[in-house]
Amino acid sequence: MLDLNNVFLPKSLSVSEYSSILLENAVNELSRLPGIGKKTALRLALHLLREDATRADALAHSLTQMRSRILLCERCHNISDTPVCAICSNPRRDENSLCVVADLRDVLAIERTATFNGLYHVLGGVISPVEGISPTDLHIDSLIRRTHEEHFNEIILALPATIEGDTTNYYIFKQLHDFKGKVTTISKGIAIGDALEYADEVTLSRSILNRTAFQL
Amino acid sequence: MLDLNNVFLPKSLSVSEYSSILLENAVNELSRLPGIGKKTALRLALHLLREDATRADALAHSLTQMRSRILLCERCHNISDTPVCAICSNPRRDENSLCVVADLRDVLAIERTATFNGLYHVLGGVISPVEGISPTDLHIDSLIRRTHEEHFNEIILALPATIEGDTTNYYIFKQLHDFKGKVTTISKGIAIGDALEYADEVTLSRSILNRTAFQL
Repeated sequence: MLDLNNVFLPKSLSVSEYSSILLENAVNELSRLPGIGKKTALRLALHLLREDATRADALAHSLTQMRSRILLCERCHNISDTPVCAICSNPRRDENSLCVVADLRDVLAIERTATFNGLYHVLGGVISPVEGISPTDLHIDSLIRRTHEEHFNEIILALPATIEGDTTNYYIFKQLHDFKGKVTTISKGIAIGDALEYADEVTLSRSILNRTAFQL
Repeated sequence: MLDLNNVFLPKSLSVSEYSSILLENAVNELSRLPGIGKKTALRLALHLLREDATRADALAHSLTQMRSRILLCERCHNISDTPVCAICSNPRRDENSLCVVADLRDVLAIERTATFNGLYHVLGGVISPVEGISPTDLHIDSLIRRTHEEHFNEIILALPATIEGDTTNYYIFKQLHDFKGKVTTISKGIAIGDALEYADEVTLSRSILNRTAFQL
């Protein structure tokens, strides 16, 4: 039987909750990542301990290399390994159309669809008074400059379908007053494969108002 | 309008799906971790890119340090920063009782309860013919040796409540035939806070068979 008067409180004396300061450091660093708690961090650290040492080194190396060497493209502000990114410097891309997106993840998402062959401009966010993001915090000035220096026929605004996205669309549209080409936005409506009854009312009403001619 | 004959397939020409080989490497390495897919890996990598560079370096450093410098305690096989771990070398621990666990995470779990002040022995798994884990793959020999060299009054078998755990309990118990002290196992039954109706039948029947005298 355990003598409860003699119960030992390990935290007071032991070197580390994890028996190892090295493990504890790794768990603490991993758990700073978004969506990773202490339990998951411990699972990941123990996984790296069980695996071959080269795996942990490869992970660590890839992270420091990425963080120290990655650049933002000086034309479109997409991430890049070179001063001008692979899309901007690709002669097979259509230089007449420009797609404006909020985030670099949006570039990846659109590239995966393989339906756009033009150039991009990454704003780095959308105007949001609540979060304190004003137009000067975004790459809007360089967008306007590009519309003067390059020759676009069309500017596609592919911003999030939110109030902030709409505000940013409106702001950019006003700044583009002397742009001669078309300014378009991506269509909003029912997602492909979705039933109408599950769509929210705003989306459904918008998809009715913005109905298009039926084509066979 | 997009000319569908002219649609560009980005994968064929672009340097990397992620616009950056550096980002792609980091995403690939992160997504090798258990439970982390490509999408989560991308989210983590972009988080590290947004944060201060020292954060990614600290994470990378902690992982390489942990992987290259961490040891297993030569007595109990728990992870340790020193040849003999902080628990084994702590003079305030009770050297008369030994708790046998399958995994080093079990040490952490038992330490957190602060109800055990003895020493540990980490087997490194349980006997599992299905997964090809035989007694020689586990630290059972060194456990038997410890019971001869050290002076334990009690050996607590705290292995998982599974068939493999029971098999291992039985195997160890047979090997301990000349051990003079008590051999105990942790109790199995209804989890504290659980309603009986949600307990599975095996657990419930076992908790009835193993009932204990009611104490005020």
